Amino acid sequence: MTDEDYLRLCFELAEKGRGSVSPNPLVGCVIVKNGKIIGEGFHQKYGSSHAEIEAFRSCSEDPEGAALYVNLEPCSHHGKTPPCADEIIRKKIARVVVSLVDPNPLVKGRGLKKLNDHGIETVSGILEKEGRMLNEQFIKFISENKPFVALKTAQTIDGRIADSSGSSKWLTNEESRKYVHRLRSGYDAVMVGSGTLLADDPSLNVRHHDGRDPYRIVLDTKLRIDHKSNFCRLAPDGRSVVMTSESNLSTEKARKLIQEGVKIFGFETDTAGRLPLGQILSQLYTLDIASVLVEGGAELFTSFISNQLADKLYIFVSPKILNNGISAFRGKDLSNLENAPQFTLAGTEVFGDDVLLIYNKK
Amino acid sequence: MTDEDYLRLCFELAEKGRGSVSPNPLVGCVIVKNGKIIGEGFHQKYGSSHAEIEAFRSCSEDPEGAALYVNLEPCSHHGKTPPCADEIIRKKIARVVVSLVDPNPLVKGRGLKKLNDHGIETVSGILEKEGRMLNEQFIKFISENKPFVALKTAQTIDGRIADSSGSSKWLTNEESRKYVHRLRSGYDAVMVGSGTLLADDPSLNVRHHDGRDPYRIVLDTKLRIDHKSNFCRLAPDGRSVVMTSESNLSTEKARKLIQEGVKIFGFETDTAGRLPLGQILSQLYTLDIASVLVEGGAELFTSFISNQLADKLYIFVSPKILNNGISAFRGKDLSNLENAPQFTLAGTEVFGDDVLLIYNKK
Repeated sequence: MTDEDYLRLCFELAEKGRGSVSPNPLVGCVIVKNGKIIGEGFHQKYGSSHAEIEAFRSCSEDPEGAALYVNLEPCSHHGKTPPCADEIIRKKIARVVVSLVDPNPLVKGRGLKKLNDHGIETVSGILEKEGRMLNEQFIKFISENKPFVALKTAQTIDGRIADSSGSSKWLTNEESRKYVHRLRSGYDAVMVGSGTLLADDPSLNVRHHDGRDPYRIVLDTKLRIDHKSNFCRLAPDGRSVVMTSESNLSTEKARKLIQEGVKIFGFETDTAGRLPLGQILSQLYTLDIASVLVEGGAELFTSFISNQLADKLYIFVSPKILNNGISAFRGKDLSNLENAPQFTLAGTEVFGDDVLLIYNKK
Repeated sequence: MTDEDYLRLCFELAEKGRGSVSPNPLVGCVIVKNGKIIGEGFHQKYGSSHAEIEAFRSCSEDPEGAALYVNLEPCSHHGKTPPCADEIIRKKIARVVVSLVDPNPLVKGRGLKKLNDHGIETVSGILEKEGRMLNEQFIKFISENKPFVALKTAQTIDGRIADSSGSSKWLTNEESRKYVHRLRSGYDAVMVGSGTLLADDPSLNVRHHDGRDPYRIVLDTKLRIDHKSNFCRLAPDGRSVVMTSESNLSTEKARKLIQEGVKIFGFETDTAGRLPLGQILSQLYTLDIASVLVEGGAELFTSFISNQLADKLYIFVSPKILNNGISAFRGKDLSNLENAPQFTLAGTEVFGDDVLLIYNKK
């Protein structure tokens, strides 16, 4: 097996922590001695021991002189746990192979330098693109102090998310809908506009896939939310969050919602009466929310696109044509074709007759 | 190798005739004796010898007692060439394996029956779905006396084929555009509306791929076409066809176009001034046009969809969002989501950051 093969194994191990470690990064580690894997581990839960430490614990023999593979640079600072670099030095590892240098300003090369200073051979930047993709949420969170934002739409071939009566029921098939639950389990929060909340009363939880429920965030300028909604029913878990106009904070309705367990944040609206998306993202950062999946409706999708705040798109295409109806993205022209926001294709998935198109911000 | 393997080889051979044999079917044939391929052939050109005859000609030894594989039932009638079934009997083939029973009313099982009557073992229906897909154009043509219709659009993620200024230049990348030329070479005709012809002055020929140019068909109710257009410039090859209101047939402009080599057909328009698509397709049948690729604009796309006359869709998705612009399919609601025209996903292709979604009529 090559360095790349061992790093791919790290990616697989790291992936097992998705939904449990945020806002920490996904990290997997493999220890190899004389061409044999003698230990492996991954970061399992926020605040628990790092992947390197887990790998040391699992070692079937003394790792002295072994090579250690890890997708993210070992930490050099005291956080919730002692620095991994120190432990690697103590265990007399001979060689450390890393995919991505940690973008965390507290680390950023310091871990590798420390290892080097102690005579350990280090290699970094192998499969860096894949390593970056794996931790796209963490990277955004740690380097911009804002959560990673993905938009998820389900639309017809001609780009309609609902017919002109507003109905969007059964646009996609069961397999696609199950995948959405899997997606949700990998995001710290799910966000919708108040229109979608009032129209569909979604539970926004993870039902057809193992994993914890994400935060539920509604952008509700006028605090129109219904006390009997699923959103309020689930509020006692502390994960229902309302973003509203600051003028609503002192109302009786707000007080009642807070009593029910809803978290409410107020913002100054712009002249068009819209909430400031950028500030809202900064607010989510304070809640340690590293990633947000925006699920509708059209107004919210359009705002994120127009403000260039979408990092990723998940576009489910249902094999139907409506000729009319509600477009996911609408409103004033963004611009002409030459200046239209562009994305790079990150992948496609097929679920029966549905196709999922995945794009990254360019 | 199994029966399926040999038939897949027939499919590959048959595919070589694409663009040359229409309105005949694509047919490939393999002859196997004692587990060894002793002959193979395919139908190469409209009117030339059939695949079975080509395979016999290529035989490296006497095919007596051999198995013959062919994707379409051998013919039993005298057409431009003598019946293949007779030749198979004469060569004393022991076993004939067929994917698809010929949908041609002149054959439809008669070929297989004739072989059976002469003591030859026959098997049919193996890889039938693939065999049907291979000859989707021929099947439509021979069983409904109308060409197979595919729509080709290039649109943004949000379903816009042009920005609101009407510009669609460089919507897709070079790789996608090359694929369109390959597509064209596999269709007997390319069709556009007069708006697209006037706006873009397309050549509608095959430039980046080997293959003959298809017929160029424009739906031009008011005979607005420009004498200086590429469409007219290419007319001397006899492949430029105008469909117009019958009231234009006797005009001076029509006379001049005909002199230039343009073929013109007149039709009665409906109360909205629209040409009758169904009749136009029947007219194309008389020209032995077995397949049509419709390339725009929105009005024509929408008419084909609203009239349920599209057999296939090729949707190129460009990684851009416009929020506005011209939709490929627009107009009055077709219906609500429950009754919207549905398709089945036939496949996806990736060209850089562009995705091609291919659908079949459900």
